[in-house]
Amino acid sequence: MDIVVMKFGGTSVADADRIRRAAQRAIQAQKKGKQVVMVVSAMGKTTDHLLNLAGEVSENPPRRELDMLLTTGEQVSISLMAMAINAAGQEAISLTGGQIGLITDAVHAKARIQKIDADRIHKELDSGKIVIVAGFQGIDESGEITTMGRGASDTTAVAIAAVLNAQFCEIYTDVDGIYTSDPRKVPDARKIEQISYDEMLELASLGAGVMHSRAIEFGKKYNVDIHVRSSFSDSQGTLITHEVEKMEQIVVSGATVKKDLAQIVLQGLPNEPGVAADIFAQVAQHNVIVDDIIQTFDGVGQASCSFTVEHSDLSECKVVTEKLKNTYNINEVICKTPVAKVSVVGVGMRSHTGVAEKMFSALAQAKVNINAITTSEIKISCIIDPEQANEALQVVHSAFGLEKEPGN
Amino acid sequence: MDIVVMKFGGTSVADADRIRRAAQRAIQAQKKGKQVVMVVSAMGKTTDHLLNLAGEVSENPPRRELDMLLTTGEQVSISLMAMAINAAGQEAISLTGGQIGLITDAVHAKARIQKIDADRIHKELDSGKIVIVAGFQGIDESGEITTMGRGASDTTAVAIAAVLNAQFCEIYTDVDGIYTSDPRKVPDARKIEQISYDEMLELASLGAGVMHSRAIEFGKKYNVDIHVRSSFSDSQGTLITHEVEKMEQIVVSGATVKKDLAQIVLQGLPNEPGVAADIFAQVAQHNVIVDDIIQTFDGVGQASCSFTVEHSDLSECKVVTEKLKNTYNINEVICKTPVAKVSVVGVGMRSHTGVAEKMFSALAQAKVNINAITTSEIKISCIIDPEQANEALQVVHSAFGLEKEPGN
Repeated sequence: MDIVVMKFGGTSVADADRIRRAAQRAIQAQKKGKQVVMVVSAMGKTTDHLLNLAGEVSENPPRRELDMLLTTGEQVSISLMAMAINAAGQEAISLTGGQIGLITDAVHAKARIQKIDADRIHKELDSGKIVIVAGFQGIDESGEITTMGRGASDTTAVAIAAVLNAQFCEIYTDVDGIYTSDPRKVPDARKIEQISYDEMLELASLGAGVMHSRAIEFGKKYNVDIHVRSSFSDSQGTLITHEVEKMEQIVVSGATVKKDLAQIVLQGLPNEPGVAADIFAQVAQHNVIVDDIIQTFDGVGQASCSFTVEHSDLSECKVVTEKLKNTYNINEVICKTPVAKVSVVGVGMRSHTGVAEKMFSALAQAKVNINAITTSEIKISCIIDPEQANEALQVVHSAFGLEKEPGN
Repeated sequence: MDIVVMKFGGTSVADADRIRRAAQRAIQAQKKGKQVVMVVSAMGKTTDHLLNLAGEVSENPPRRELDMLLTTGEQVSISLMAMAINAAGQEAISLTGGQIGLITDAVHAKARIQKIDADRIHKELDSGKIVIVAGFQGIDESGEITTMGRGASDTTAVAIAAVLNAQFCEIYTDVDGIYTSDPRKVPDARKIEQISYDEMLELASLGAGVMHSRAIEFGKKYNVDIHVRSSFSDSQGTLITHEVEKMEQIVVSGATVKKDLAQIVLQGLPNEPGVAADIFAQVAQHNVIVDDIIQTFDGVGQASCSFTVEHSDLSECKVVTEKLKNTYNINEVICKTPVAKVSVVGVGMRSHTGVAEKMFSALAQAKVNINAITTSEIKISCIIDPEQANEALQVVHSAFGLEKEPGN
C-alpha cells in the first residue's frame, strides 16, 4: 500500500480548528487508500513561549535541558492531533521521536539523525492507524532527548519518508509553494511548479525560509519527492525533485536576498599554505557559521580574505579577528555591517553563458554598487548595500523574466 | 551519604521565582552534605490548561493520548528546575519517568508503579548532581508513556525515597502541614505535628486533599517518613510516620468532610452468595471507584445494598445499575445526589469507647440527619445532606476538642 508522509508546521496546527483541518487532510488521504504518517511541529508560538520560560530562569541554559524543554512542544501537538483524528472516528497513534527509535548523535540542539526504526511505524500503519510522529526530536544511544535545530521537523518528515519508501513527502505550510522570489518584496514573483534539490538547497541557504536545508539534502540523498503546499488550500504547491532535462532549459529559477549580514575583510595576510585553514578553524571554534568566503592575492606577496557572517555573530567574530590580527600581523581588519546579499539560482546556468553579465548589468543600471561577488555552479551572489537590497532583488528578478512562466 | 527526596507540587513551581526558591532549597540541602533528588509536578495550572486543549479537539480523548499530552507538563518543570539550579552554579540533571526506568503497568491515566531503576539515579547523585525527576509519569514495559492519576507526583517521590533508602521524603506544598480539619471550613483547626500512616490514609481518602493516598501506602509499606511542609516558609510541617505509642492516646486526630458524592441504593436484592461480588465487579469494569459500601438484610430473603461514588461517576454508574436491575429483578434503584460525608479518624479509637456515640450526639444536637453510617477500625463516617456539611464538620471538630493540643 502506498505510504504518504504529511508534515504540518507550527502555523498549520496553531489552534484546535487548524488541528482538525490537518486531521481531515490525513483522513482524506487514508480514505483514498494510502497509509498516512503525519509529522507535526509545535503549535504556533509554543517554542518561543518555552524559550521565554527558559530565559526567565537562566541566561545560558544547558542545551541538554533546553532539548528536554522544547521537545514537549511537539509532544503536545502529536497527542492533540491523535485526539482530533480519534474524535473524527478514525484510529490514530502519536509517537515521540524516542518511540519511533529516531536515534541521533549526542549533539544537543543540533543533533543529526543516525537511524529510524521503520518497523514500529509499519506495525501501527498495518493495523489501520494514522501514525503521528513528533518532529524535530530524537534520542541518542543512551536515551537522552535531543533536538535537531529549529525547522528540523521537515528533516524528520523527509527522513521518515525515506526509511518507509513513501510515495512522497508533503510539507504543509503557511505559503502555497516556493516562489521565484519573496512575494512580499517582489510583487510579481511567481510560484514555481517544480524545482531541483540543488536549486532548492541554494535558495534555502540564501534565505528562502520555506524549507530546512537538511530536509532537502535528505530528499536528494534518498530520492524523496517533496511537495511543498499550503495547509489552507488545495492548490498545487511546488514539487522538489531530482533534476530533469526541462529544468536545464530554465537558466535562473529564483532570486533571493539575505539581509543582516556582516562582511569582514582581512587585508595583508601572508600568502602561505595553511593560513585560510587556520583562520576558519578559529572562527568555527567560536561556533560562528560563515556564509561566503572570498580570497584574492595582490600579485606580490600578500592576500586579502573577505567573508560574511550573520550580523548577530559579529561580536563573537571580532574576538577571533583580534587574535588573528596579532598572529599574522594583519594590516587592517575591516568590518562592514550590515550588508545584504542578492543572489540568483538555477541549474540551467551550467549550460548557459552570460548569466553573470546579465545580473551585473541589471544592478549597474539600478546604480547598485557591488562590494563582492561569489559564485557556485548554479548560483551568483553579490554583496551590496542593504538599503538597495529590495530594489536590487526586483531588478534582478525582472532582468531574468522570472515573473513569466518558463518557456513563454 | 544521606539521600533526601524533595517533592514540589504545582503551586511550588508556578513561576520562575518559585522555581528559583525551590532550587535554593535543594542547593541548601546539598550544601548540608545530602544527596538531593527533587520530584517536580507540572507548573501551576498547566495540567488544567492541557486538559482544556484536549477538550477543544475531543470530547472523549483516548487515555493513551491524554497521558502523552499531560506528561509534557512535568517535563517542562524538570527542565526549568535543572536550568535554575545550573544558573545558581550547581550541577543538576532532569530525568523523565522513562529515563529513571519508572516502569508501570499499562493502565493509562491510572497506572501503578512496578519498578524503578535506582542505579541511574545513584549514578547521577554520585557524580555530584542534583537529580530532578518528573512526577506523575512512567512508561510501561513496551515504552508507552503512562500516568498514575492526578496528585501522583507524591507517589513518585515516596517510591523513589523507598528504592533509594532515602532518609526521608519531604513534600513541599502550599499548606504548612496536615490539619485536624480544613482550616477554610473550621477556623480553629490545628496543625498536627505527627500522624500515623493509617490515620493519614483515612484522612486522604476522606477528602483531606494534601496527600495522594498511594503515596502514603508506599510510605507505610516501605517505612518512609514523609514530611509535609510549606514551600513558602521554614516552619516545621507534619510528619507522617509509623504508629507510636503516644498516638494511641489521641482518640480522634482529624475530622473531614467530602462533598460531591452520590449515594446509590439497590433495594430488594437476592440475599445469595456472589451477588455483591458480581455487582461490584461490574461497577469496577466501568472504571468507577466506589467509596463506601453498606449492605443490610431485611431478615426475610432480600438484601439492600447502598454505596457511594463520586458525583462525576454517577452517569457511568447508572449504566451499570440499569443492567443490574434486569439481572436481579431489583425492586428499586435509588440515587441520592449530591450527598456529603463527614468523618472522624484516629488510631486511638481502637482502644477507646464512646467515640461513635459522641459523634452522633454532636450531629443530633446540630439537627443534622444521618442517612448512612460506615465505620472502619480507625474511622467513623456519616452520610449527610451537603447543605449541612460545613456545620456538621465544625460541631464534630469541637465535640472531640481537636482545636486543643493533645494532652492539654
